[in-house]
Amino acid sequence: MLLVRPGDATLLIDGRYTFQARQEVSGVRVETVQHGLFRAAGEAIARRRRRRTVLAAYSPAQMTVAQQAAIEAAAKGHIRWVNATGAVERLRAVKDTDELARMRQAAAAISEVFSDVVPLIRPGLAELDVAAEIEYRMKRLGASGPSFETIVAAGARSAWAHARPTSKLLKKNELVVLDQGVILRDYCSDMTRTVFLGRCSRKVRRMYRAVLEAQEAAKNTIRPGVEAATPDSAAREVLRKSGLAGFFTHSTGHGLGLEVHEAPRLGKGERAILEEGMVVTVEPGVYVEGFGGIRIEDDVVVTSTGGRDLTTASRELLEL
Amino acid sequence: MLLVRPGDATLLIDGRYTFQARQEVSGVRVETVQHGLFRAAGEAIARRRRRRTVLAAYSPAQMTVAQQAAIEAAAKGHIRWVNATGAVERLRAVKDTDELARMRQAAAAISEVFSDVVPLIRPGLAELDVAAEIEYRMKRLGASGPSFETIVAAGARSAWAHARPTSKLLKKNELVVLDQGVILRDYCSDMTRTVFLGRCSRKVRRMYRAVLEAQEAAKNTIRPGVEAATPDSAAREVLRKSGLAGFFTHSTGHGLGLEVHEAPRLGKGERAILEEGMVVTVEPGVYVEGFGGIRIEDDVVVTSTGGRDLTTASRELLEL
Repeated sequence: MLLVRPGDATLLIDGRYTFQARQEVSGVRVETVQHGLFRAAGEAIARRRRRRTVLAAYSPAQMTVAQQAAIEAAAKGHIRWVNATGAVERLRAVKDTDELARMRQAAAAISEVFSDVVPLIRPGLAELDVAAEIEYRMKRLGASGPSFETIVAAGARSAWAHARPTSKLLKKNELVVLDQGVILRDYCSDMTRTVFLGRCSRKVRRMYRAVLEAQEAAKNTIRPGVEAATPDSAAREVLRKSGLAGFFTHSTGHGLGLEVHEAPRLGKGERAILEEGMVVTVEPGVYVEGFGGIRIEDDVVVTSTGGRDLTTASRELLEL
Repeated sequence: MLLVRPGDATLLIDGRYTFQARQEVSGVRVETVQHGLFRAAGEAIARRRRRRTVLAAYSPAQMTVAQQAAIEAAAKGHIRWVNATGAVERLRAVKDTDELARMRQAAAAISEVFSDVVPLIRPGLAELDVAAEIEYRMKRLGASGPSFETIVAAGARSAWAHARPTSKLLKKNELVVLDQGVILRDYCSDMTRTVFLGRCSRKVRRMYRAVLEAQEAAKNTIRPGVEAATPDSAAREVLRKSGLAGFFTHSTGHGLGLEVHEAPRLGKGERAILEEGMVVTVEPGVYVEGFGGIRIEDDVVVTSTGGRDLTTASRELLEL
């Protein structure tokens, strides 16, 4: 835990991290604590205060009730909480040059992993087998791991937007949704492609084209100054014209960075304004219960001239 | 989110899980909500109350300040919180027959994965490469994934109790700590082995023997009725006699089940009483800064006659 004060910062760690901190941390004081990080933070606040009460900024969405109580008890009443919801998230939403370089690399890595795995996908493999092949290649490319549990969902399960891979075997004439991302040099990527095992019907082809057009329409609205709701409306409008709007059951995208879900969210009613250097996913999908789902997702950086794809794997409908 | 009332339960989900819930959930009402699970829970409490105030049991360690506030606001003051810290954890600490069968399977799977990967470990592979081989085999055995990020830490990094694998290449004459577990049919395993690349020195051999003896001493104390501090003291006593007590910088073990860290904790001052059907890790280690670390960890079930290992991979010192 990093305790930040004006002109000063202390990293609180427990004994398991002593050696690592000596190697990796510079520029701040490091303290190894015995009885929990939150109690130590409260004690440090009580000990080093100059006034009766210390203002402590916190994010209610990130702190548990127990953590807040532990800090308060150790600070012995010398603390006043200031709700700083979104403060760190806002700082993180716009990426600097180094961050964008890392995110480009993370996006390139997942594009490469996907392209390498496509030739292996065939009937008879389990969803979990395909996920294993994907995550194996992530680490071999130097990623510390997946940025979320890889989704491989086949057949009717492809209509579950957040399916987890199972031992279900892939079959001919099924849609397969593959949603995957890496953490590489601390930054996340997140990309979805949908493939078909065999020759697909006109219905599937029409659905796929509609989702791809929705995605392109959403991407085309992206530029600095636009509201975060705008790409979402654009995607929905395309799907509405194809009679598929009712099958698009989540929002169009989300920010991406050190975490796989960051600000801003691209969804209905979102008033945040897109800025140069933000990175967002654009991922419309349609999900038909009992039939299957199609989602196409890329990571897009907001540049002065518009959105630019970081993920590069082909978006053509692959019939395997 | 599952909202449990006397004689009644409701599963609150968002639109992404509608199809999945229809397939997988029975015996409870399912409600798809629009504006967040916590607001919906508060509204349901306000709507269905029979008295002025509803008692709501909660775990402060599991609920964020924002989640609590969202429920409260939606419940419009009709709620009184009851601190139920540890209530669910206590219910989960003792495993039933079906749970133990699953945990045996999860432990067997990680033992098999480790034994399959050992022949591949050699100088020139990156830590991440070895972790990739391990996690690949987990999923191929039907595991939904690792129960935590696999640790492969070589050389001086093996002394970092919680090292994450990096692109560092394994070298001859290094210790390598491998700490890994799977989630299989929802239950976790967690096993550590330490190997040496080459022929190890007498110092390493002595350290290894001390850790193994400490582990055996801890295991030998395990039976129903014993305090959770006892295995920890036993391990420390062995290491003290070898002059290594100061290098054992964490507690001896933790419960294991649906999560990789559950009750009880095996550490100094822990007063919980071991009961038949509990499953705990036993994992003493010694960590010498700049030199390396050794940890040996098994999953042990408490039976009426004593502790029994669930993880079975050889604990002999492997010189590869």
